[in-house]
Amino acid sequence: MAAEIAEQPEVWRRFLADGPEAGLAEAVAAIRAQQPRMVLLVARGTSDHAALYAKYLIEIELGLPAGLVSPSTMTAYGARPDLRDVLMIGVSQSGGSPDLVRCLEVGRAGGALTVAVTNNAASALATAAHHHVDVLAGAERAVAATKSYTAQLLALHELLMGVRGNPDGSVASLPDLGSVLVERDAEIAALAVRYRFAQRMLTTGRGYSYATAREAALKLMETAYVSAQAFSGADLLHGPLALVEPQVPVLAVVAAGVGGDAMGAALARLRELDADVCVFGRPDAVAAGAAGIALPPGVPERLSPILEILPLQQLARHVAVDRGGDPDAPRGLRKITETL
Amino acid sequence: MAAEIAEQPEVWRRFLADGPEAGLAEAVAAIRAQQPRMVLLVARGTSDHAALYAKYLIEIELGLPAGLVSPSTMTAYGARPDLRDVLMIGVSQSGGSPDLVRCLEVGRAGGALTVAVTNNAASALATAAHHHVDVLAGAERAVAATKSYTAQLLALHELLMGVRGNPDGSVASLPDLGSVLVERDAEIAALAVRYRFAQRMLTTGRGYSYATAREAALKLMETAYVSAQAFSGADLLHGPLALVEPQVPVLAVVAAGVGGDAMGAALARLRELDADVCVFGRPDAVAAGAAGIALPPGVPERLSPILEILPLQQLARHVAVDRGGDPDAPRGLRKITETL
Repeated sequence: MAAEIAEQPEVWRRFLADGPEAGLAEAVAAIRAQQPRMVLLVARGTSDHAALYAKYLIEIELGLPAGLVSPSTMTAYGARPDLRDVLMIGVSQSGGSPDLVRCLEVGRAGGALTVAVTNNAASALATAAHHHVDVLAGAERAVAATKSYTAQLLALHELLMGVRGNPDGSVASLPDLGSVLVERDAEIAALAVRYRFAQRMLTTGRGYSYATAREAALKLMETAYVSAQAFSGADLLHGPLALVEPQVPVLAVVAAGVGGDAMGAALARLRELDADVCVFGRPDAVAAGAAGIALPPGVPERLSPILEILPLQQLARHVAVDRGGDPDAPRGLRKITETL
Repeated sequence: MAAEIAEQPEVWRRFLADGPEAGLAEAVAAIRAQQPRMVLLVARGTSDHAALYAKYLIEIELGLPAGLVSPSTMTAYGARPDLRDVLMIGVSQSGGSPDLVRCLEVGRAGGALTVAVTNNAASALATAAHHHVDVLAGAERAVAATKSYTAQLLALHELLMGVRGNPDGSVASLPDLGSVLVERDAEIAALAVRYRFAQRMLTTGRGYSYATAREAALKLMETAYVSAQAFSGADLLHGPLALVEPQVPVLAVVAAGVGGDAMGAALARLRELDADVCVFGRPDAVAAGAAGIALPPGVPERLSPILEILPLQQLARHVAVDRGGDPDAPRGLRKITETL
């Protein structure tokens, strides 16, 4: 897991160079020709968080309505929706889960244009879809997905911004920024001491960074066995705030931009409740928290999830190792999960 | 909270009698005239779980794609999507949260047909929408929503099945079945002893009952301050299964029908891991668990969420009271949450 975390900037460099030839350019052209009226996303687990990120990009940058499919409606319940004018994107590391393959097949039969985004061009999902974008992350061995997650984020960003047009070139700076970030592992190891005995944690973020909060919670659950729960900065105020007490640590992702600004109300309530908040993101927000990791400025907010998950992956790994766990092979899990 | 839980069958009786005149018939006619191509749902907190239930109904019974809107895309990020041919349904107890009102306004300006489902016909959300369906739950005083939740489920069921047509009349049996269920409070009080000292809990369900699992977890969080996490029976296998250990209780909702059948793989894995599983639902599944509450057969699966949440509301209340909490006024929360 440590090696795969460190490898991420190299994975992004590879995708930026070779992605267009690995299905990206073809998929962008097909979507532009289709002119979809809405987008459906199909994914599970870590890939579901990449899909959530894509949902924000679609709604904000493409101005299209988007939804995350509940796969059981198409598999167990046999729904056969009319999906003309719909773009359906399936996201999966392995491309092997039978329920996702079935959803893409149902979507294709219902008239949708289907695109698979996976780490395996020979997978069933890649074959089931009209088009396949290979995220080019290379074989991922740790059960907890890391490099395949940020590779999915980058591939989805390039796919959707390719559809939008007018790229601003800011994506080119990601690999160098990421290389600097993964070098800060000792700083994260020191931070992990704070959570050595935490049984429960809350993570929060808004907008694009909500995906980061969700993925960070999953990493903490599956590697360090912490009961970590993610809430958007708005949903936190609707009920889950009752869970907040000084002995339940909160990890808040606060990017520079609209989503980070919208975290203001949640951060203020957390302060009133004497919560222990560790901020990942904007230096000013980090300074106001109990602890934090300041992230480099200079990328548009929509790219920040690709960077801000890195220290959170490292944190989950350190907490897991400190507790005697094996983050490469967490208890109870398999690398390829086959759900029906 | 106890009084409002017990009142639910009466609320349903009232809605079945007076709902058509309280905006339901008008909204059904408007949607049938529109013939939407897709449906977007907007909600937060408990109402978000009612929206999730509606999403399954829409995908399965209407054969239309559906999505849950991320409100910040329209509020903070200013997305202005093209929503012609789209039905947008806002769900809220109070109808007072500014971000949901803004989403309905943006939806309406973007060409969507907008319907609000609230417990307050004079609310801002009711006013912002083309049509309003009053769930007729009466004033709800406890901070933890109970009767407004099942009233929303019933109103959404009647709205969407009205659009589908061919009602089967099964809804008429709900109030009597509910009356029998709420009388079993002493049985639930005895069950609550089992969870007196639980710090963490998992809830799970699939299909329609996934909404029940989500709402049960929220009730446990906001009244009893348990770190309760909900996962669909499929998502549980993708990572969160690592959290399962004999001292983390699992509440599984297993309805008679497709969703309950689809829980088989998750229940089998939980057994392999020696999890302590309490089943709410089918008698055969209850018999296989460590504890359970058998629910009456005889309603279609799509109606079961309206019944199966009742014992879970009672359980959350008993655990809260046993621990010295005040479920009518949980710490840190307000009845009307205003998020922007």
